[in-house]
Amino acid sequence: MMHSLIDSFFLKEFDNKILKRKSDSAVIKIGAEDIAFTTDSYVVNPIIFPGGNIGSLAVHGTVNDLSVCGAKPLYLSLGLVIEEGLDKKTLAEITKSISAAAKAAGVLIVTGDTKVVEKGSCDKIFINISGIGKVYYPGLSGDRIRPGDAVIVSGSLGEHAIAVLSKREGISFGTDVLSDSASLNMLIAGALKASRNIRLMRDPTRGGLGTTLNEIVTGGKFGIALEEKDIPVSEGVREACELLGFDPLYLACEGRAIIIAAPQDAAKIIKVLRRDRLGRGSKIIGRVTFDHKGKVYMKTSSGGLRLVDMPSGEQLPRIC
Amino acid sequence: MMHSLIDSFFLKEFDNKILKRKSDSAVIKIGAEDIAFTTDSYVVNPIIFPGGNIGSLAVHGTVNDLSVCGAKPLYLSLGLVIEEGLDKKTLAEITKSISAAAKAAGVLIVTGDTKVVEKGSCDKIFINISGIGKVYYPGLSGDRIRPGDAVIVSGSLGEHAIAVLSKREGISFGTDVLSDSASLNMLIAGALKASRNIRLMRDPTRGGLGTTLNEIVTGGKFGIALEEKDIPVSEGVREACELLGFDPLYLACEGRAIIIAAPQDAAKIIKVLRRDRLGRGSKIIGRVTFDHKGKVYMKTSSGGLRLVDMPSGEQLPRIC
Repeated sequence: MMHSLIDSFFLKEFDNKILKRKSDSAVIKIGAEDIAFTTDSYVVNPIIFPGGNIGSLAVHGTVNDLSVCGAKPLYLSLGLVIEEGLDKKTLAEITKSISAAAKAAGVLIVTGDTKVVEKGSCDKIFINISGIGKVYYPGLSGDRIRPGDAVIVSGSLGEHAIAVLSKREGISFGTDVLSDSASLNMLIAGALKASRNIRLMRDPTRGGLGTTLNEIVTGGKFGIALEEKDIPVSEGVREACELLGFDPLYLACEGRAIIIAAPQDAAKIIKVLRRDRLGRGSKIIGRVTFDHKGKVYMKTSSGGLRLVDMPSGEQLPRIC
Repeated sequence: MMHSLIDSFFLKEFDNKILKRKSDSAVIKIGAEDIAFTTDSYVVNPIIFPGGNIGSLAVHGTVNDLSVCGAKPLYLSLGLVIEEGLDKKTLAEITKSISAAAKAAGVLIVTGDTKVVEKGSCDKIFINISGIGKVYYPGLSGDRIRPGDAVIVSGSLGEHAIAVLSKREGISFGTDVLSDSASLNMLIAGALKASRNIRLMRDPTRGGLGTTLNEIVTGGKFGIALEEKDIPVSEGVREACELLGFDPLYLACEGRAIIIAAPQDAAKIIKVLRRDRLGRGSKIIGRVTFDHKGKVYMKTSSGGLRLVDMPSGEQLPRIC
């Protein structure tokens, strides 16, 4: 609730055209260049989790926010708030992960800032990474979406949320779940190169697929119809959701892209995505429809029709 | 100590040419454009202090880091980490200050992120503001400095640090001290327009004038000789320093620029600076010298010569 309050509060106070677009990155013009600019603060708890840590996560998250806006991520800033007494070994591990993730994504950390606060004034370490990219594919936008468009996801849902949660709560499931946290810039660049008919891309982080798709259709002229049987969910996430009562549709991913594209290009895009290790699980999971205007519906595996609405609160705190 | 450790640690891990320059902003090339990019996290305690709050401070700090690199600040990001339960009135006050400071400096907040953490996991609110500017005056650099150059400061030292400290500790002095926190982009643009012989600019934030000047001369071919009698320190700051044993040379400013310029242009620059309300207290405080290579010396008011060395630790924590 606080989150939505703040959101509307800020949008009103800082009212401007670019911010209002509420996309993952702002696209701004400097001289002749279209530049994407984004920021994310990371407060994930625990700071080290199966498949990653707060450092690699921060790089991936910011790289992905730039990538889904059609930009090539180039430069990152690094802002750290560190609790006094954080042990050096942990700090070294996180720093090395930041460095390795930046190298793997082909981005440079060019500016930074470190603040150390007294014990008890912050929970171990918070990281802000802002990023700049050059927009190579301008105009990706919800306005381009047409009925019949395919809704594609680049892999299975919710691994990141479940990996963090299992570590935080000390729960283990039948199958180990590793975070899907990864930089998608190469994967996305491949898809954008293969098809000029990609309408819009998003990464389903906080609030997961359900929230992201609702943000896309809300107030718009179309709806989205999902097919539950086509939505990829791993065995481990499925077990964890059954055990804990979570819905995988609302679990955060940190290495998945949602791509909305013209139907005639969907097969080609899927083929290109699957060639990449990070897109091996890519699937068409639904269609943009004339009906259900502004809503997301899902045909369930048992043949029913379910409204996938905007969640009223955050399902899980401090997952990113 | 932790700070210097981290600093060397990060520089080694993220080794690249741009970061190594250790200037207030990174200057990067995107297409044909020279772009300045900077980040700062703010953890000031208390979050509201005489003359400003964490919100206005964050805007000023980032605007100034871009400005001293010869860039026109254009776009800011806003990353907030908020402690659950922070009262709405305080949050509204800070938000309004951010908005007002951005408007006054002519910059737009185009992207943002908010995280709320449980009570006790952060101290009220931490703010990261990253910024992008277009470089209009490229090449400002320590390499340009020559013996005989004038060292100019745009106003009196240490008001910010003393204002924050007095509020935090509940101390009052004979004279009220307000933070000097302000956006210097217009002031600096005026100086750069007036003289093509400005070599380098910096804003003396953490560690104050003493630290900043040491960073400029360390490892270089020249020294700096200051004149104590010319260094502007307000009555209130002087009293506070005498009472508490602080040295104004090491107190953080958030609305002052240090300008190193060719001697023949110094008077012209001072004249232009003084026309602006924020530069009214501008003074030439010293010279670049052949002797004292790599060191900062000060001729004291009593006629002695004092080494102004790099402080071994932070004089005051959580001042910005």
